[in-house]
Amino acid sequence: MTSIDQRWLAAAAGLAARARPLSRPNPGVGAIIVRDGKVIASGWTQAGGRPHAEAVALAQAGEQTQGATLYVTLEPCAHRSDRGPACADLVCSSGLARVVVGCGDPDPRTAGQGIARIADAGIVCELLPSPACAESLSGYLIRARHGRPEVTLKLATSLDGCIALAGGESQWITGDQARAHTHAMRARTDAILVGGGTLRADEPRLDVRLLGLESRSPDRWVLTRQTAPAGWQTIASPEAIRDMAGVQYLFVEGGTLTAAAFLKADLVDRLLLYRAPIVVGGGKAAIGDIGLASLGQAHDRWHLQDRRTLGPDTLELYVRQR
Amino acid sequence: MTSIDQRWLAAAAGLAARARPLSRPNPGVGAIIVRDGKVIASGWTQAGGRPHAEAVALAQAGEQTQGATLYVTLEPCAHRSDRGPACADLVCSSGLARVVVGCGDPDPRTAGQGIARIADAGIVCELLPSPACAESLSGYLIRARHGRPEVTLKLATSLDGCIALAGGESQWITGDQARAHTHAMRARTDAILVGGGTLRADEPRLDVRLLGLESRSPDRWVLTRQTAPAGWQTIASPEAIRDMAGVQYLFVEGGTLTAAAFLKADLVDRLLLYRAPIVVGGGKAAIGDIGLASLGQAHDRWHLQDRRTLGPDTLELYVRQR
Repeated sequence: MTSIDQRWLAAAAGLAARARPLSRPNPGVGAIIVRDGKVIASGWTQAGGRPHAEAVALAQAGEQTQGATLYVTLEPCAHRSDRGPACADLVCSSGLARVVVGCGDPDPRTAGQGIARIADAGIVCELLPSPACAESLSGYLIRARHGRPEVTLKLATSLDGCIALAGGESQWITGDQARAHTHAMRARTDAILVGGGTLRADEPRLDVRLLGLESRSPDRWVLTRQTAPAGWQTIASPEAIRDMAGVQYLFVEGGTLTAAAFLKADLVDRLLLYRAPIVVGGGKAAIGDIGLASLGQAHDRWHLQDRRTLGPDTLELYVRQR
Repeated sequence: MTSIDQRWLAAAAGLAARARPLSRPNPGVGAIIVRDGKVIASGWTQAGGRPHAEAVALAQAGEQTQGATLYVTLEPCAHRSDRGPACADLVCSSGLARVVVGCGDPDPRTAGQGIARIADAGIVCELLPSPACAESLSGYLIRARHGRPEVTLKLATSLDGCIALAGGESQWITGDQARAHTHAMRARTDAILVGGGTLRADEPRLDVRLLGLESRSPDRWVLTRQTAPAGWQTIASPEAIRDMAGVQYLFVEGGTLTAAAFLKADLVDRLLLYRAPIVVGGGKAAIGDIGLASLGQAHDRWHLQDRRTLGPDTLELYVRQR
């Protein structure tokens, strides 16, 4: 049974999706202010990271905050900045009766101090761990905890796991709806990466070709030891994703060797698998050698989190269990 | 909106499943006798093919047939046999008021004559084509129309379409529930086939290891030009399935080259795909070269008919669109 508080937090997490990816380098946060069971204000982190979600919602609520509850996906920040006031301070002077936080902020400048400052001001302040909030902040949390972006590996395969004919033909395995969905996924990421072989063979544009979202095309990276063409940045190994400054969400689109390199390094968090109802037979495999010594090692690593139908194709999202 | 008649026919098709595969060489037929909206008798083809479903149901109904309706998945047979009376004759003298048939019998000894004889006797007799009945008779109908068994190709793969590690290790890709399901599928087939390479490498037993169903283990065949060990029969090419006397349902379990040979010959009717949530990477592909010249040829051939969860694994059934 999901509590009312958890449901309001999940709603705030839904709003946070609107902040992504334009909020970077800040986390995409969502906030909802509720009084007498009704939403009186809401907000999410604005482009470039300011104003923060809480500031937007509080400004919208104005005088109505008296006795109300703020639901916010991430702990309000405790550090003052040239770019704006600390949200914890805004909350302290807001007149709010209660604050429910879905996820603590691992940033050492906040890390519990936001919640403590609000509680010290006499406002009830609870940390209620919310799976929906953690999910909405996944890239930010992985960067804060592990110093790297969240990595989503996208594959588009036939039923027998091929991404192309043996001769290289790969247009198209999946249909229009699956490809449009991929473009929408690209629009939610900060950076996109392919291997050097794929770049040379396919010259992919990797842009977002969806009406109104063209400007959302992420930064383009290539995994190579060679020089990249203009408009592309390079890393020489999967581990070098640590050096992608400010990138919270990385979308890896192959090919075979790049997919294998990221899996071998255990740097794939999400596997986004588009599958067409076709049989290729003897085609190009989706994933190269990942150094698996036995089948036993392969089990209990991936959990099916979502499945949906996209025209004739099926999309499955598998999440790495750590 | 499914009519009442269609629903009774679907119920009869459900009973027909009990006849499979022991009814061979006869089709597995189901019959239900209904009066005033209630089932008063039912039957299905018995082991070895006799008695037929209609004879079982009529014997069970006895005097209660007066004014009742018989729902039967396949047209009652019109030909007399040493093994028993023609069902059409039994129906004519039964006192039934009405007969609803889900599927015409392509056997030239019946082929419309069963329905005609019943109608001539003054009993209302309707052919109401039923997808459920056709599905329950699929192997019989394919053999009658195309002179070969229905072929189900079973694959058990990782998410990236591998059936084993590159070194050959294949135990196990899928879990206990998926493997038990495979045994239940074997118990419903007349014959099971693997390639010569798989036979030599894995020495598979291909039997039914389910309590109470051990005796249902199907005949074992191998696709090879060589001599087979004791207990195995051989065919030299997929096309030679025409020579498998009496076999309505053939279950092909691989390996890679055998799967490809059947697909290349377009002799696969159903693709039964067990998928484990694991990544192998650079493993042994499920399906070898099938001679595909372009991706365009691969589309619009397979329709997803069923999907279910078996423990951590997913089972998908794709049916060839012809």
